[in-house]
Amino acid sequence: MTNLHIPSIADVIGANKIVSPLIHKTPIRQYPELCDLLDADVWVKHENFQILGSFKVRGGIYLAHKVVEEDDINGFITASTGNHGQSIAFAAKISGMPSKVVVPMKANPAKVSSMISLGADVIHHGNTFDESLEFAESLSEKEKHFRFVHPANEPYLITGVATYSLEIHENINNVDYLFAPVGAGSGAAGASIVSEVISPKTKVIGSQSESSPAAYLAWKTGKFSHAENKTIAEGLATGHAYEYPINILQKKLNNFVLVSDQEIENSVLSLLKTTRSLVEHAGAATLAAALKLKKEIKSKRVILVLSGSNITLEQLRKLL
Amino acid sequence: MTNLHIPSIADVIGANKIVSPLIHKTPIRQYPELCDLLDADVWVKHENFQILGSFKVRGGIYLAHKVVEEDDINGFITASTGNHGQSIAFAAKISGMPSKVVVPMKANPAKVSSMISLGADVIHHGNTFDESLEFAESLSEKEKHFRFVHPANEPYLITGVATYSLEIHENINNVDYLFAPVGAGSGAAGASIVSEVISPKTKVIGSQSESSPAAYLAWKTGKFSHAENKTIAEGLATGHAYEYPINILQKKLNNFVLVSDQEIENSVLSLLKTTRSLVEHAGAATLAAALKLKKEIKSKRVILVLSGSNITLEQLRKLL
Repeated sequence: MTNLHIPSIADVIGANKIVSPLIHKTPIRQYPELCDLLDADVWVKHENFQILGSFKVRGGIYLAHKVVEEDDINGFITASTGNHGQSIAFAAKISGMPSKVVVPMKANPAKVSSMISLGADVIHHGNTFDESLEFAESLSEKEKHFRFVHPANEPYLITGVATYSLEIHENINNVDYLFAPVGAGSGAAGASIVSEVISPKTKVIGSQSESSPAAYLAWKTGKFSHAENKTIAEGLATGHAYEYPINILQKKLNNFVLVSDQEIENSVLSLLKTTRSLVEHAGAATLAAALKLKKEIKSKRVILVLSGSNITLEQLRKLL
Repeated sequence: MTNLHIPSIADVIGANKIVSPLIHKTPIRQYPELCDLLDADVWVKHENFQILGSFKVRGGIYLAHKVVEEDDINGFITASTGNHGQSIAFAAKISGMPSKVVVPMKANPAKVSSMISLGADVIHHGNTFDESLEFAESLSEKEKHFRFVHPANEPYLITGVATYSLEIHENINNVDYLFAPVGAGSGAAGASIVSEVISPKTKVIGSQSESSPAAYLAWKTGKFSHAENKTIAEGLATGHAYEYPINILQKKLNNFVLVSDQEIENSVLSLLKTTRSLVEHAGAATLAAALKLKKEIKSKRVILVLSGSNITLEQLRKLL
């Protein structure tokens, strides 16, 4: 797994030519109240305005473009807590192919209904993402002409999602810190690959819930054991870490911060109030992490990646 | 007032050259669940992703560009329930001038704090918008070098905000219905002016709360008397109609629908759920109106203008 090709900046620039015409070039904005809150020069990258409400679509589009070029396939199979599945369902749809997405039994209904409306065959299986993933892999044994898309160990996904970081550095200079949420790690890996070359001074900081710290523990210790997986931020909810993105993060990520679910919830509210936009829990983990590093980032130029908007009415009700 | 120049399509195309580089070209998207709900080919224009969370900024930018060119002024005075005030504060700021905005005592605090952070001198005066406006006019008598900006009787504002309709028709053909909210009427007037020329088949439908029906009554009867003003949709809250936009709407608007505050609240929730984005009450009035005309618009291509996102946590809490 660790000998999979690590995307280069050239790969990402190439991917951007494929991805960019099909997605929304999301704005990067400053909100004075957020600057005050962090006592820094804070900008947010509004991937919560992205089509399908998440940055993940960038990865799906690029992967579908590449594998349709390379392989003789009739469809896609994957597992997802939601946003990655929407991305694959969308990419399959624009490629004129079917998709099967395995999701945990308690998957976010907003994300599930979006996948269904994109034509995906959504299969509820397993109590956790890890069980869903295992089931998707077993399904793919029987469906040989469906391309199994591993949600983490997949260079094309990282290459595709890395395009958001290209947009950041193309539009704003001298970024000191870039905060990206970490579920399996593809978004933060992409941000690290791009920043290392385009803006070497930028420190990329990953953020994860301490209730689902698998990726953090693997990044820190190099050991890939099962971890507790109880976060309410379903976009960050995995009990396993995956070698390929963690390998990239170990080489390139500057720091990794754990935050509590309570801190994430407070950050969803702060972002709702200051940006008047919906940010799902995973995306708000970036603000929670920045608050933890408030001393370090004082007066610095900081980017918070608001990775998605897919929050349910039920989650919102609970928060308010 | 009624002999003010009615903007032409050429005026709007000219304004777009000024406005477009400074704003966000907001996406126009389709959500399958909204199509199902209305049984039509529904697209939303996401002005709730616009900078400052409202289409109004387009008007402020164009107005400031024109008056700074024409007049010897040192600043701007206006009255607003919120979004127009943000727009003028922003336009003043990028012109390097001060602004004074009079708002009702109970103005939406999210909008007020945004105005303050843009450098505006915000003056709370009056229980209603109409009282705030009267006070702003009296203030402007004393501040001769401040340009008084009437929030409704002002051709430059209508010309500027009309640019969102240009973006709609540039990006999507054969629009049968375009629903726009009506407070004082500048947005709907702009949409009517543009659609009449660029897409004559498009029926522009205004929508207002039946709890603040001043513009509707003036449009229907030609009489400009005071009306009840109790809507919770502060973006639509005025007890007076204004001759200049109403004159344009009488000539060009195809239909005007009143909806209840309850229908508006339900529509905020429906849009939250289907688009996973924040839409303030005024913007949701378009969906409420489309639901009222469901029979008429069946299977037609429909645009809903989601005019803004500036809803407070308190309003959201109440809704959920």
